[in-house]
Amino acid sequence: MMIRTGIVGATGYAGAELVRLLAAHRAVEITVLMSRQFAGTPFDHVYPALSGMVDLTCEPLAVERLTACCDVVFTALPHRIPMEIVPALVASGLRVIDLSADFRFEAAAVYEAAYQPHTAPELLKQSVYGLCEVFAERIEKAALVGNPGCYPTSVLLPLIPLVEKRLLDIDSIVIDAKSGVSGAGRSPSLTSHYCEVNESFKAYKAAEHRHNPEIDAVLSRFAGRSVGVTFVPHLLPMTRGMLSTIYATPAAPVSADDVRECMRSYYHRRPFVRLCGKDRLPDTRHVAGSNFCDIGVRMDPRRRRLILFSAIDNLVKGAAGQAVQNMNIMYRLEESEGLTALPFPV
Amino acid sequence: MMIRTGIVGATGYAGAELVRLLAAHRAVEITVLMSRQFAGTPFDHVYPALSGMVDLTCEPLAVERLTACCDVVFTALPHRIPMEIVPALVASGLRVIDLSADFRFEAAAVYEAAYQPHTAPELLKQSVYGLCEVFAERIEKAALVGNPGCYPTSVLLPLIPLVEKRLLDIDSIVIDAKSGVSGAGRSPSLTSHYCEVNESFKAYKAAEHRHNPEIDAVLSRFAGRSVGVTFVPHLLPMTRGMLSTIYATPAAPVSADDVRECMRSYYHRRPFVRLCGKDRLPDTRHVAGSNFCDIGVRMDPRRRRLILFSAIDNLVKGAAGQAVQNMNIMYRLEESEGLTALPFPV
Amino acid sequence: MMIRTGIVGATGYAGAELVRLLAAHRAVEITVLMSRQFAGTPFDHVYPALSGMVDLTCEPLAVERLTACCDVVFTALPHRIPMEIVPALVASGLRVIDLSADFRFEAAAVYEAAYQPHTAPELLKQSVYGLCEVFAERIEKAALVGNPGCYPTSVLLPLIPLVEKRLLDIDSIVIDAKSGVSGAGRSPSLTSHYCEVNESFKAYKAAEHRHNPEIDAVLSRFAGRSVGVTFVPHLLPMTRGMLSTIYATPAAPVSADDVRECMRSYYHRRPFVRLCGKDRLPDTRHVAGSNFCDIGVRMDPRRRRLILFSAIDNLVKGAAGQAVQNMNIMYRLEESEGLTALPFPV
Amino acid sequence: MMIRTGIVGATGYAGAELVRLLAAHRAVEITVLMSRQFAGTPFDHVYPALSGMVDLTCEPLAVERLTACCDVVFTALPHRIPMEIVPALVASGLRVIDLSADFRFEAAAVYEAAYQPHTAPELLKQSVYGLCEVFAERIEKAALVGNPGCYPTSVLLPLIPLVEKRLLDIDSIVIDAKSGVSGAGRSPSLTSHYCEVNESFKAYKAAEHRHNPEIDAVLSRFAGRSVGVTFVPHLLPMTRGMLSTIYATPAAPVSADDVRECMRSYYHRRPFVRLCGKDRLPDTRHVAGSNFCDIGVRMDPRRRRLILFSAIDNLVKGAAGQAVQNMNIMYRLEESEGLTALPFPV
Repeated sequence: MMIRTGIVGATGYAGAELVRLLAAHRAVEITVLMSRQFAGTPFDHVYPALSGMVDLTCEPLAVERLTACCDVVFTALPHRIPMEIVPALVASGLRVIDLSADFRFEAAAVYEAAYQPHTAPELLKQSVYGLCEVFAERIEKAALVGNPGCYPTSVLLPLIPLVEKRLLDIDSIVIDAKSGVSGAGRSPSLTSHYCEVNESFKAYKAAEHRHNPEIDAVLSRFAGRSVGVTFVPHLLPMTRGMLSTIYATPAAPVSADDVRECMRSYYHRRPFVRLCGKDRLPDTRHVAGSNFCDIGVRMDPRRRRLILFSAIDNLVKGAAGQAVQNMNIMYRLEESEGLTALPFPV
Repeated sequence: MMIRTGIVGATGYAGAELVRLLAAHRAVEITVLMSRQFAGTPFDHVYPALSGMVDLTCEPLAVERLTACCDVVFTALPHRIPMEIVPALVASGLRVIDLSADFRFEAAAVYEAAYQPHTAPELLKQSVYGLCEVFAERIEKAALVGNPGCYPTSVLLPLIPLVEKRLLDIDSIVIDAKSGVSGAGRSPSLTSHYCEVNESFKAYKAAEHRHNPEIDAVLSRFAGRSVGVTFVPHLLPMTRGMLSTIYATPAAPVSADDVRECMRSYYHRRPFVRLCGKDRLPDTRHVAGSNFCDIGVRMDPRRRRLILFSAIDNLVKGAAGQAVQNMNIMYRLEESEGLTALPFPV
Repeated sequence: MMIRTGIVGATGYAGAELVRLLAAHRAVEITVLMSRQFAGTPFDHVYPALSGMVDLTCEPLAVERLTACCDVVFTALPHRIPMEIVPALVASGLRVIDLSADFRFEAAAVYEAAYQPHTAPELLKQSVYGLCEVFAERIEKAALVGNPGCYPTSVLLPLIPLVEKRLLDIDSIVIDAKSGVSGAGRSPSLTSHYCEVNESFKAYKAAEHRHNPEIDAVLSRFAGRSVGVTFVPHLLPMTRGMLSTIYATPAAPVSADDVRECMRSYYHRRPFVRLCGKDRLPDTRHVAGSNFCDIGVRMDPRRRRLILFSAIDNLVKGAAGQAVQNMNIMYRLEESEGLTALPFPV
Repeated sequence: MMIRTGIVGATGYAGAELVRLLAAHRAVEITVLMSRQFAGTPFDHVYPALSGMVDLTCEPLAVERLTACCDVVFTALPHRIPMEIVPALVASGLRVIDLSADFRFEAAAVYEAAYQPHTAPELLKQSVYGLCEVFAERIEKAALVGNPGCYPTSVLLPLIPLVEKRLLDIDSIVIDAKSGVSGAGRSPSLTSHYCEVNESFKAYKAAEHRHNPEIDAVLSRFAGRSVGVTFVPHLLPMTRGMLSTIYATPAAPVSADDVRECMRSYYHRRPFVRLCGKDRLPDTRHVAGSNFCDIGVRMDPRRRRLILFSAIDNLVKGAAGQAVQNMNIMYRLEESEGLTALPFPV
């Protein structure tokens, strides 16, 4: 029995990446693709890379259509819109994995401070934050998953084991993050114009990015107190890829090996976290197209400052891939089902 | 029973791409990786993108080792070296797919004019030119396949159906080809230095490239007479991708639709040739990472000149992917086995 | 006495490039910058690269303002709009250099077939086609110059000397042209989105581009009969740069040296045409940021086919630089005044 | 009277950039170009971008030739080699601007800990650190200038005013720096191979880079005590450009405006430091090709952490441009002479 799957917002970059991954997933049948902008257009006219491989035509958003033909729905829409349709989907017994920010927060107030009024706050109690390596047990039982943001995924995976073990001075955390352009989505804008990005590197929304409170909220759960990190994102002249460089002062003397060992035991047997040894640092190119998160550890000995590096593909582990991983966990499939394609060697 | 497979020259770009594809191939077990430069080094230290996914260590070149543990061998070496080891492999009963130019030519003299003296000319009689969509029947029975060059693959797939049907004035053919940098291999050189390629576009070896006689030789078989095309390659500032734009005068009045129909019937049921309709032209991005060859057709009505476009990933359909496809044909597997990963939507 | 200069459409890419060049021009004072989209905004807020270097604020389009404070006006606007304002400027005694297609054609009918009805056809008689190296004598006396398109500039400079000398079979000309993205302008669109262009190469408007009739019209003047070339543009993943590869059959046996000699004598003492010797082919990188046109010549000996290469920066020699060069000629300044900055070595 | 100038190491990227800048400098005559690798080759064969613009042929290294025909010599060589030739040049009365690390340190021991034994330690007393905006008065009188490293330039310009004014907790400084590939030089290597850099982003030499002690040494002079910053460089997929993001805790409560005001008064009237207002952050693209250093300031209010951004072109302000600026200061020319070309708007 195949899992009948619908993708809402299928023609954005995260949605199209879901199509790519799910079209090759052996336990899944894609039954419906919805797109407000391209309703009526064959999906592969919008994404000719998948020409001949996906023969569905995009449909307008319609909840009844989803409840009629889906077991699980991925909503890959701008925040605010999922709040409007997800309650009905969940009420109909569907499982929902939402890639927006709408169901990532436990407290509506935190969401509202960063986004806008929340119109389905009652669902926040039952929604589970879909950081797979950390919350798998709760994801298994969830009807609704709030798929993590790309920056939070890259930041939380290296930090959570160390924060949980009280290895870090929580107030010392500085995150210098860098993302490829696909994270900004497919809508044309001056900031994603080729000539404005090419041969350019710059920070944006320094200490003002909406992923900052998402990071703070999740870390606070593990720190046992309110955490506020300094978070500065930058835009890289590349399509896919995200690297976060994280600086923190250890709470007590530890070595890079201690830190590596802490992570190794935390991520033991998790297929998508790859811990780099002493001789390697993560490179966005080494994870592109894959669901891997590569993590590296260095210690600045003179300043006793820990430096962590983490690389993901923002569209895969940072969006569509983690969403598929969440579905796999919800359906008790192999966690890596449909996610085994290897990164390009070059 | 898994096919025991060895890759010689595994740490070049084509070799590493073979590793990527074969590591995920369900009928294959990679038993040995050989590399002159990296003998003794774990393969995934050379290609950290595959870290944890391939646990073989590179070995030095050794024919006996190959005959002891392989059913089929891929040789991904600079031309001249395969001539030295392939005869022994074939004599031992192994199947060999050679990615160099050494076994692509029927006539040693043509090879020797472009390369150097041929030291195993007797094998040219039994080697088969591995352009899968055209020579599948002969490949099925072959012990030795000469895997086509990347440029010839991109040029021959659109041209052969038309030349065979006598639709073109053979002497009018002009090929303006463009390739990504990975085609030049992994050895560092000024011409592959990032700063020399980035924001740069230029022709090289205009009308002097060694793939020109390869194209001429194969086309001549279908034209029934000696063919000499004008072929000018250019270097694109990108890693993967090849686009050939081909200009030719029709032998008699035909429309773009006639030409499309000729190709459609020729490539009927071949999974990797995608013929673009009127509304689309091939884009290297749409085939990157895949074994597809996308072909487009236009007619310049005022000048009655046919324009063909063909896009491939030079490392996949232009090298490693077609080599795997050849193996599939030789072993009567599904032609697309191990080659079904979809191109990235973006 | 400084030349008082206005730029209309100053915030498009060609307009901003005019600002860059004219701000450093020793005989020029920029008196007014006009922009429909950014009226009221300081120019260097729109282009922070020029922060602190240009202190004008963009103004709305207003003919009287131009006539009041300018000697010469550059109009860098989408075609159709210049036709509406240029007649009044010329009537007021200003000199005008228009970067759109509106004043490039001698025959209104040719313009109208490619664009739209021409509303100032009487001006076509007095406007001069601003290909500086070819029409300098007429430009000197012109009140209105139609600045050539980028593709035509790159194509006509290598072809005109050969067509004039009757060295080519006119009907054999095929032009395979490639342009950087800045040629498409600054307005955001899916086709200029970073993720759609990066790692992508494709043709567009094959044999349907509006620069094709512009090329045909000018070549016809030199051929003494109607010329129709095959012209296929492609989009390069880079910001600046254009390379045209031109194929043609010689009318009678000539060598590459003969062709080089023909060009050398034609462009003798012209500072911006650089003829490459036997050992070099043009590279877009070698002309980026400069007003140079680098030309290379090769002969395919077996097919007796001539191959020409020409590289320009589409925003400089293909737009703003040539416009400044036209102004220099009109004002009998050194042709290279304000255009002497050297290309980056890397 | 023109300043007779020689460039030793003229065919590396920094050397070639010196040629580009000095060829257009109105007070300079380039009399000799030296290159170990390309002795005997015309310079513009090595750098065709400058074809026809520079007609010198590269010569082998020879001190007597320099003393015979130069007033000032730029040495753009790998460290260690300048120590061998600079003493003789200085002894002959020439002025020398060395772009290597050999004369950047006051204490030989610090140099030796990071590099190798210093063979001309007596010159360290008279050599002046060529950070123009900070040490201009000493540079004016110097016979020998140690031109700063690219990373130190980008880091020291924003930090020195704040450290001098005691605005920062010195021990809190973390520098996350990112550089384009040209900083690694022209010698081919795997790390500068196009396919290894393209679509890649990664850190390297984390907390181990040789520019770290250079930064520490200079900051210590202003802090009045030993400073040790955490410094992590990353490699950007672009040719030119460097952005440093600097995190520090204020020593006492200050606002971003206070910090901006401190810098504004420090760099008052210095033509190459551009302080961004509240609404803009530095972008490498905005300084490419120019000698500007763009600086931005942000405060993370919740964490009371100051964030500084600084962008330079690593080959210009980070190498050749600052070297020319040093020469201008030494010769009491306008500081910006030969350095006024504007960055490209796009």
